[in-house]
Amino acid sequence: MPDFSDLDFARVDVGRLARRGFPEAAFAEGKSPDDLTKILETLVEKNGVALATRAKPNQYKKVIQDARFESVGRCIVIERKPLPRLPRKIAVVSAGTTDRPVIEEARVTLELFGNSVEMIQDVGVAGIHRTIAAQELIDPCSVVIVVAGMEGALPSVIAGLISKPVIAVPTSIGYGASFGGIAALLGMLNSCASGVTVVNIDNGFGAAYAASLINREIGMPFSGQ
Amino acid sequence: MPDFSDLDFARVDVGRLARRGFPEAAFAEGKSPDDLTKILETLVEKNGVALATRAKPNQYKKVIQDARFESVGRCIVIERKPLPRLPRKIAVVSAGTTDRPVIEEARVTLELFGNSVEMIQDVGVAGIHRTIAAQELIDPCSVVIVVAGMEGALPSVIAGLISKPVIAVPTSIGYGASFGGIAALLGMLNSCASGVTVVNIDNGFGAAYAASLINREIGMPFSGQ
Amino acid sequence: MPDFSDLDFARVDVGRLARRGFPEAAFAEGKSPDDLTKILETLVEKNGVALATRAKPNQYKKVIQDARFESVGRCIVIERKPLPRLPRKIAVVSAGTTDRPVIEEARVTLELFGNSVEMIQDVGVAGIHRTIAAQELIDPCSVVIVVAGMEGALPSVIAGLISKPVIAVPTSIGYGASFGGIAALLGMLNSCASGVTVVNIDNGFGAAYAASLINREIGMPFSGQ
Amino acid sequence: MPDFSDLDFARVDVGRLARRGFPEAAFAEGKSPDDLTKILETLVEKNGVALATRAKPNQYKKVIQDARFESVGRCIVIERKPLPRLPRKIAVVSAGTTDRPVIEEARVTLELFGNSVEMIQDVGVAGIHRTIAAQELIDPCSVVIVVAGMEGALPSVIAGLISKPVIAVPTSIGYGASFGGIAALLGMLNSCASGVTVVNIDNGFGAAYAASLINREIGMPFSGQ
Amino acid sequence: MPDFSDLDFARVDVGRLARRGFPEAAFAEGKSPDDLTKILETLVEKNGVALATRAKPNQYKKVIQDARFESVGRCIVIERKPLPRLPRKIAVVSAGTTDRPVIEEARVTLELFGNSVEMIQDVGVAGIHRTIAAQELIDPCSVVIVVAGMEGALPSVIAGLISKPVIAVPTSIGYGASFGGIAALLGMLNSCASGVTVVNIDNGFGAAYAASLINREIGMPFSGQ
Amino acid sequence: MPDFSDLDFARVDVGRLARRGFPEAAFAEGKSPDDLTKILETLVEKNGVALATRAKPNQYKKVIQDARFESVGRCIVIERKPLPRLPRKIAVVSAGTTDRPVIEEARVTLELFGNSVEMIQDVGVAGIHRTIAAQELIDPCSVVIVVAGMEGALPSVIAGLISKPVIAVPTSIGYGASFGGIAALLGMLNSCASGVTVVNIDNGFGAAYAASLINREIGMPFSGQ
Amino acid sequence: MPDFSDLDFARVDVGRLARRGFPEAAFAEGKSPDDLTKILETLVEKNGVALATRAKPNQYKKVIQDARFESVGRCIVIERKPLPRLPRKIAVVSAGTTDRPVIEEARVTLELFGNSVEMIQDVGVAGIHRTIAAQELIDPCSVVIVVAGMEGALPSVIAGLISKPVIAVPTSIGYGASFGGIAALLGMLNSCASGVTVVNIDNGFGAAYAASLINREIGMPFSGQ
Amino acid sequence: MPDFSDLDFARVDVGRLARRGFPEAAFAEGKSPDDLTKILETLVEKNGVALATRAKPNQYKKVIQDARFESVGRCIVIERKPLPRLPRKIAVVSAGTTDRPVIEEARVTLELFGNSVEMIQDVGVAGIHRTIAAQELIDPCSVVIVVAGMEGALPSVIAGLISKPVIAVPTSIGYGASFGGIAALLGMLNSCASGVTVVNIDNGFGAAYAASLINREIGMPFSGQ
Repeated sequence: MPDFSDLDFARVDVGRLARRGFPEAAFAEGKSPDDLTKILETLVEKNGVALATRAKPNQYKKVIQDARFESVGRCIVIERKPLPRLPRKIAVVSAGTTDRPVIEEARVTLELFGNSVEMIQDVGVAGIHRTIAAQELIDPCSVVIVVAGMEGALPSVIAGLISKPVIAVPTSIGYGASFGGIAALLGMLNSCASGVTVVNIDNGFGAAYAASLINREIGMPFSGQ
Repeated sequence: MPDFSDLDFARVDVGRLARRGFPEAAFAEGKSPDDLTKILETLVEKNGVALATRAKPNQYKKVIQDARFESVGRCIVIERKPLPRLPRKIAVVSAGTTDRPVIEEARVTLELFGNSVEMIQDVGVAGIHRTIAAQELIDPCSVVIVVAGMEGALPSVIAGLISKPVIAVPTSIGYGASFGGIAALLGMLNSCASGVTVVNIDNGFGAAYAASLINREIGMPFSGQ
Repeated sequence: MPDFSDLDFARVDVGRLARRGFPEAAFAEGKSPDDLTKILETLVEKNGVALATRAKPNQYKKVIQDARFESVGRCIVIERKPLPRLPRKIAVVSAGTTDRPVIEEARVTLELFGNSVEMIQDVGVAGIHRTIAAQELIDPCSVVIVVAGMEGALPSVIAGLISKPVIAVPTSIGYGASFGGIAALLGMLNSCASGVTVVNIDNGFGAAYAASLINREIGMPFSGQ
Repeated sequence: MPDFSDLDFARVDVGRLARRGFPEAAFAEGKSPDDLTKILETLVEKNGVALATRAKPNQYKKVIQDARFESVGRCIVIERKPLPRLPRKIAVVSAGTTDRPVIEEARVTLELFGNSVEMIQDVGVAGIHRTIAAQELIDPCSVVIVVAGMEGALPSVIAGLISKPVIAVPTSIGYGASFGGIAALLGMLNSCASGVTVVNIDNGFGAAYAASLINREIGMPFSGQ
Repeated sequence: MPDFSDLDFARVDVGRLARRGFPEAAFAEGKSPDDLTKILETLVEKNGVALATRAKPNQYKKVIQDARFESVGRCIVIERKPLPRLPRKIAVVSAGTTDRPVIEEARVTLELFGNSVEMIQDVGVAGIHRTIAAQELIDPCSVVIVVAGMEGALPSVIAGLISKPVIAVPTSIGYGASFGGIAALLGMLNSCASGVTVVNIDNGFGAAYAASLINREIGMPFSGQ
Repeated sequence: MPDFSDLDFARVDVGRLARRGFPEAAFAEGKSPDDLTKILETLVEKNGVALATRAKPNQYKKVIQDARFESVGRCIVIERKPLPRLPRKIAVVSAGTTDRPVIEEARVTLELFGNSVEMIQDVGVAGIHRTIAAQELIDPCSVVIVVAGMEGALPSVIAGLISKPVIAVPTSIGYGASFGGIAALLGMLNSCASGVTVVNIDNGFGAAYAASLINREIGMPFSGQ
Repeated sequence: MPDFSDLDFARVDVGRLARRGFPEAAFAEGKSPDDLTKILETLVEKNGVALATRAKPNQYKKVIQDARFESVGRCIVIERKPLPRLPRKIAVVSAGTTDRPVIEEARVTLELFGNSVEMIQDVGVAGIHRTIAAQELIDPCSVVIVVAGMEGALPSVIAGLISKPVIAVPTSIGYGASFGGIAALLGMLNSCASGVTVVNIDNGFGAAYAASLINREIGMPFSGQ
Repeated sequence: MPDFSDLDFARVDVGRLARRGFPEAAFAEGKSPDDLTKILETLVEKNGVALATRAKPNQYKKVIQDARFESVGRCIVIERKPLPRLPRKIAVVSAGTTDRPVIEEARVTLELFGNSVEMIQDVGVAGIHRTIAAQELIDPCSVVIVVAGMEGALPSVIAGLISKPVIAVPTSIGYGASFGGIAALLGMLNSCASGVTVVNIDNGFGAAYAASLINREIGMPFSGQ
């Protein structure tokens, strides 16, 4: 018995919610409004929610009526039957204002997946006192997503201060010749603070998915092994 | 009041256990046996445990009596006053036999940090039925560390099957021209399975540190926000 | 006696069909409609068929009347005197919907060259059961072309399941920072499944040419060496 | 019912011969003589033959009595119950004398897998008449493996002359700063001759495995689809 | 006494003709028509000739009346007082039709600098008989410029056939993923034919300048050292 | 009148002290003890001081009697007639203990060139309070050299705290796969703190030379422009 | 007491002038005219001056009345209450005319920060006499910023001639395939002239910031340590 | 009629002297003394001279009696029947003392091929007056080979001063992190002086071969086209 819906041009993995705890998202880039609409309809019908990332406003118009477009995070969101709320908050921290599209993609995903989010923006390490001041906002959260471009130093400093899992997202956005985010990616992979894990450049969705998996595991009842 | 011990040639971050939940580890490569001994003594005195990674047997002889050398994982371990046991198990999965030094570094770290470990070796995707068979061993665990060289495809398949956080470790070990692990690293960063996070090449310790942070957060009592 | 036609601006290798078994194709990118028309006319006159890859619709209008434009695969096809049909089928398998332009370029080439094609789309390894389900469609084929972006893991899993030659095509298309297909290319070159061969990024035509050479060799009468 | 043998330190994929047509080979690099011996014993017991690549002479001494060491190709070969002979020959062509370890690894593998081999050495394109003279030796073969370092131009010239599938192997060996074989690898991926497929740097075994899959498919009886 | 003209926004190196034998050329990219006009006027006034490379038609309109625009080679040429004719011919050889802008830039430069040019187009190594046929046209020339994209194999074959200096130019133009000409550049630097020298990607002007220096040295009277 | 001494095998730039303010240093790597001795003798005779970097102890034995070997910094130093003392101190700050060879090379150079040095070791950003504590030691200095491996984040944090010029030195030393210092180099070039300048990987000597030029300029009398 | 102004979408580091000696600049790329205006208003209100780099003319119209747009250097400048004048001049030297946007960004920044500037343009090393002639203009300056694209050789020659600190800026602008400035960047990092420090590609602002820090340190009264 | 000698393990291209004007050289690296001896014997018998590059002293002992070993240039030379003397001199210029193995390989090759050589060592651009002083030694030569490591700036300066063809050789030797010669290679490819051509890293032999081709063309009688 297949766990996907065959749309001829795509096999939508509608079984992902059951297998993985969170649903598949549609990557909107390069899809026609018609195709994207069909995929989102299939997803929302089976899962109650649907998400398209890297979307454009003109891909939104043809989509189902209860969809909304998140312009900074470039997401189409349909939340007909919300996913269960998770008990713990997740922090999303950014180094600079230019990282906003990425942290917004993370925030939209996190909230759709049932997480509360603590947004802490523009606390890059060139003004280290701001960075340190962020600690008290992070402490009650279960996981921290840290987003930074340029040299990608913020996750190292944050991780050194706290006892929470840190997921680092390098961004391609920002000033200087950062080689499209490679400088930040390498910086984060080589973090001097132990235990930082990394997702791909600009992948706010991926970081949110990983953080949600952790947050859900924390919130689940467990009765020994 | 400083949270480090000044050894003249090093400032040992003995406050890390308090701040981060797990202690600092000494990176043995390039350190003299004398220096390494002093650092480990300082760490074990303050924290009750001490760990040196990337160590050699001849760096071990001069170290404190209750130390043991883990030869495959290349670690020196001192466990005088064990850290608290954590309730959930962590899975460590490898693609091939050549990944052993990395999974052993992860296992030794995990166990020292209070985790129980489920080792699942040599289940690379070229024999996909073995990979799928691993699922039932992984399901009871709270986190999965997946270690692979070559194309680094194993985390994608594992993550697609389960609802647990997956931490991927690319290895430089293995056959073919894998450009020192870059092929596997890129493969894991570009995983088609959502929510895979990645640590640096061969960084079994880092993956274990991150997994321990998650496992500890899961095991901690929590009474709302 | 030369085996090429001198068009002043180009020396069309009309002898390629005789030497290699399959005709030269015109690469349309950067050619004027007039020049492309002349090349295609020369090719179709000598070979009975003609193919232009990476073409645009507006390059098509000026071309000979019996040409057709394949919009997804971006090919101009003229098939005045079809090439001989080959007895065995070739499978073309893709990991995701965004790989469509590449698999269509492969399909159009394969069919023009006399092959029957089995198209198996969107069976990426993040939903491994779909991947495994593809096996029964592949088994009757003589060769498999496997197209994937991102981490390029699909050829490893497919090749591990079957006894057919696998030609892997990395794609630059897809989501995440895949460095223009380099991640998938490296993944395929380092495949843990033995015997996978690789063509250049997005080179659906090249994979189809190679697969046709194999399929034709299989179909040829042979009476010992 | 598992198709692998569990050796504790490894899960030997003894089912690969049945699934894929050719057996798994052991990659000897980094394995102890004891471990390698156990793996080879397991393979030869199930499959009748066994192969270890990238082996050293001192890994050979502890192995089963009927094993032989191929010194140039760095392989350990056991051929207790030979695999079925295939009707067609395979050509192995090299550009220079420094490519010998790679073509020998290919030859040893091909012969163990039941293929007859035509060796054509040292016909690099700087002496193009030698290259062209190779054509008549290649013509009766079903597949051609072309091995070259430096700029990797030989496969382009060979493929332009013949109607057989060409599998190209870039080598890291040779003079000049070839960046460890990357120059040859890129050259082969960008071959101006259509239909060249490529394996990893120095991967003579992989090319032989792929060529054997093709040769076996050609040799198999087939009664329509 | 300065050997440059100070135009405020530029110091035109009008002494270059005297020092180096050939004049400075203006690189048109990014220059305003007004600025480019002033530079060309200064150059033509002092040297009798002037050349702008990488120019656009709309940069040409505002330039001096006796200028002409070479559209394929993207050059503006003014030849008021021609440079001395050189006795020997120079060959310019290309692998494919897409290399035309680069060979045209070379041809225009060569002719302005007083050389006769033998153009030999579209003789790539995938049709090796065409390549070999080019030899008799090259033999009377003093230098050969060989232009190729993709794997850049043409200079190796040409150089292996003749006793003339070969200057290789890799091109970024062409089909397949050639990484913007890096594959061809590496191929040419690693040529298996001794004595091939290389200029930068697409640098037809630079190759022509180098070839002119050689041709001029050959043509100069010399009475011992 | 030449400002260099011709040693047949080398032209020692003895005029550099006059022209640039500080003398040439000999790079010892790959030089025979005899050659190195001759170069150092020439330098010390003209300049009163001499320095060889990247030296080995066995290169030291054959050198002039008043030379000393700095083992951690790998330098040979001769200080027969000390250079003038400069009034301001220079800070040398390191992220970790493994950076010691580089900071020692910097320290030895700085002291030979007449600077007082403030050494501040092992204050990496994973323990940010240590980093901040370093500020009061840096404040009285005129320039800061900041040395770090891994992600190279330390210069960004230091530069954000102070008003002094910061010269950053990436190191290849340290743990994790830092790609030989490229991660730290890119991190420093992309520093989010304005005004950080960078020298080559492991180039403690170069950083010290640059810092000395600044410190000397500060110390020089100046009477307007 | 925070040293930043919270604008909701950004935390403007208005304390940077006090901490670092020079104010924060706004990076205009990707900011809306409204947001940029608010940031500049905040900066100018606290600091008396404000600077936006990488700005476009249409971002300028909505900004405060006393702002001016520097078109070549792409900067918006507001100088309501000028910063203190510094006693020494800074030289800005360029290799070619195409480096103008970068040297203008440096000049505008330097002048806003209180420095006098000596501009020396178009003195690249291909006309070495012009380069040498620049020396007498540089000698009275305290620091030299050297800007060059292509092979980035100018800083090596300049630094070899003088006793001043040299800050090198590689540019992405210019002709030939310079890989977006990487060739110049590597050239400068590997300069054979000791003591050259480097900033990121095209980072005229960063070089000016570093030079200003040095110039300010030189100009400050100092009464011993 | 073949123009090569078949030695079983190699096909020695003895026809190269006739075709190309200069003989093939043996690349000694990785060859056994026996094999190398046979190749050299074959070459010297046909051509009167023989050359092996990248040789070791212990490869020399078994070679023919009239061979000599050039230790710095790492060449084995046999000159039984010298090649014709060429009328013009060739200059070989180096930037530093560490480039010696490469310039010696060039010198040995040039002299064996009949050229007189002018050696000009250690004139790097950090002491530009030495560089300029080299001009008068270069002027009587017909071609200049310029060898440099680090930033590879020397060819640009030399080429800007003279009217001779310049062949640039980047070296991997030298101090600082030059990425194995890539910095120098890129610098030379992007030279701001027109007409510089480049050979591979450390390829002194290749540069000498190219220079000899030019010098021979100059020396040949020519009676019009």
